[in-house]
Amino acid sequence: MQRIEVSLGTRSYPILIGPGAMQADEELDRAIPAKDVLVITNTTVGPLYAAKLVQALAPRRCLEVVLPDGEVHKTFANISRVLDVLVANRFARDACVIALGGGVVGDMAGFAAACYQRGIAFVQVPTTLLAQVDSSVGGKTGVNHPGGKNLIGAFHQPAAVFADTDTLATLPDRELRAGLAEVIKYGLIIDRPFFDWLEGHAAALLARDTAALTHAIKRSCEIKAGIVARDEREQGERALLNLGHTFGHAIESATNYSTWLHGEAVGAGMMLAADMSQRLGWVSAADVERVERVLKLFGLRTDVKTLPAATIAENMKIDKKVAAGRVRLVLLKAIGKSLITGDYEDAALRETLRARCG
Amino acid sequence: MQRIEVSLGTRSYPILIGPGAMQADEELDRAIPAKDVLVITNTTVGPLYAAKLVQALAPRRCLEVVLPDGEVHKTFANISRVLDVLVANRFARDACVIALGGGVVGDMAGFAAACYQRGIAFVQVPTTLLAQVDSSVGGKTGVNHPGGKNLIGAFHQPAAVFADTDTLATLPDRELRAGLAEVIKYGLIIDRPFFDWLEGHAAALLARDTAALTHAIKRSCEIKAGIVARDEREQGERALLNLGHTFGHAIESATNYSTWLHGEAVGAGMMLAADMSQRLGWVSAADVERVERVLKLFGLRTDVKTLPAATIAENMKIDKKVAAGRVRLVLLKAIGKSLITGDYEDAALRETLRARCG
Repeated sequence: MQRIEVSLGTRSYPILIGPGAMQADEELDRAIPAKDVLVITNTTVGPLYAAKLVQALAPRRCLEVVLPDGEVHKTFANISRVLDVLVANRFARDACVIALGGGVVGDMAGFAAACYQRGIAFVQVPTTLLAQVDSSVGGKTGVNHPGGKNLIGAFHQPAAVFADTDTLATLPDRELRAGLAEVIKYGLIIDRPFFDWLEGHAAALLARDTAALTHAIKRSCEIKAGIVARDEREQGERALLNLGHTFGHAIESATNYSTWLHGEAVGAGMMLAADMSQRLGWVSAADVERVERVLKLFGLRTDVKTLPAATIAENMKIDKKVAAGRVRLVLLKAIGKSLITGDYEDAALRETLRARCG
Repeated sequence: MQRIEVSLGTRSYPILIGPGAMQADEELDRAIPAKDVLVITNTTVGPLYAAKLVQALAPRRCLEVVLPDGEVHKTFANISRVLDVLVANRFARDACVIALGGGVVGDMAGFAAACYQRGIAFVQVPTTLLAQVDSSVGGKTGVNHPGGKNLIGAFHQPAAVFADTDTLATLPDRELRAGLAEVIKYGLIIDRPFFDWLEGHAAALLARDTAALTHAIKRSCEIKAGIVARDEREQGERALLNLGHTFGHAIESATNYSTWLHGEAVGAGMMLAADMSQRLGWVSAADVERVERVLKLFGLRTDVKTLPAATIAENMKIDKKVAAGRVRLVLLKAIGKSLITGDYEDAALRETLRARCG
């Protein structure tokens, strides 16, 4: 079992990575002193892993909420439903909410825990690659609004993250690839050697080679833990983790969160960010081609021709990273080096969208 | 203008107390760098003071949400409504939410600000005595749930509090008295000389003598600011501020938040806490009589005979201050000295409810 620490003073917590992580009794006992536990899962993951987790949590009182699966269900109304269960069962401040599932389940469970009695403990048991390398770490929780993704939420750090690699066995190929988009992101923003390693291990990762996946998850979590420890509330550096996300959210919003997976949209978004960075003269055409080639190597979508440029441009404006009316973007200075800036020529953005979108 | 600082490191903020506080331009400019402002108010306060505040906020873009007046409207559904307005008008992370009204408006505006984009700035402009001395200070925000009061919420500190004493001129007598219950609370929990002063100045306070009211607000805010600075998240000492509240919430819940004002319920709750403290042998019968006499002097309700003891006892169990199945209560060791404890004989609680309730 691999162990990484997210250093946040009194709110520090471990990330445990490996096969059987969700059954690591000692670590579970340390992370979950609560006697009352509410497991939030969904209709896909629940039937596969809830029984195993609940068994590991015995003799605690364990209740379950099974949400419908999918980003469209990440709503304020469903948070209300979870809160109703907590109230109806008289969960006290010392209870714990556990997220068993992907990013949607984790975001919702975390936000419900943040709101209940002004904040109770929660633990992440991510079962998708994307959640294991990204969304389960760092304390961002929340729901979507018809007007934009993740517009409602809270910063609420988990008490621990149990990334059980056994759960990846049942992950659909498409979701595996979407998770790998976020892994590629870490290489692009800050770690060129990792990006090189990923390019060289695409086949092993797609074949779900355990050692390769474990390394990819561990390195991703290390990078994210470091950034979160230095900038928990996204006042600066943490925004680098949003590479591809402003473009990606606009893609997801334009398609009503239904035809692109989040990781897929981020993948295409990174390609657009690379393209725009080249138009600003910051990276070479060869770098852009390499980014696109690696994304394709991992089976990720890069074609956004079906999406109208005007819609994408409009959707980008409601993104949370707007400051003083200006959309701040994460762009590349090189492969493995990024920056967040509102200081760019609008023409570069327009040209990227005109060239790549419909 | 009186100025008190709540010391919370980088999240420290001022409380400004005095006539015309909501028009103190320099302080407003310091506290509200935002260009976009959403004023949350209600149907009672809005017509009286919104125009004055909006004028003082010029040339910022000011939008208003006018909520129905009353505790029954402090709901998750109304938070959703406020969030919809923020999204629809594309408020960015650097926008500010301003609460203009009493405790209900402040709690809701603060919770909406806490949830929007994982937390944007908010400012309190409390217009009731209760909000000026208590709820606007300290960062507790939230809404009620059919299962209990304030069960949903967040800790989110304001950027400033503008307690404009001019607004008390339009406050109904009953609400003035309810606010004075929270003022009496500060004396009871920690400051006997202040309790003595209050007993001696009841007539002046009820007659709305400006100097007396200003002193009462200032001393209350000083005490609260000190406690919050030492224990922001209510891990210990801050819970003392809940004197009368576990009983009070049970009273409010038993009457569906409709026939008792919050401050009135807290007043009666303090009387019950004093009664129980006497049964535990901690305070004298004379002290209990004095507490009841002072509450009556301020025109506050102490008669809970119409409320069934069993209902009150049951409602107390869902209170947030339950730990390991035990209801923790704030009780008195003397007038001006209190403690929070789960270490009491249940018989004392039962006897208090049997003797005082129906």
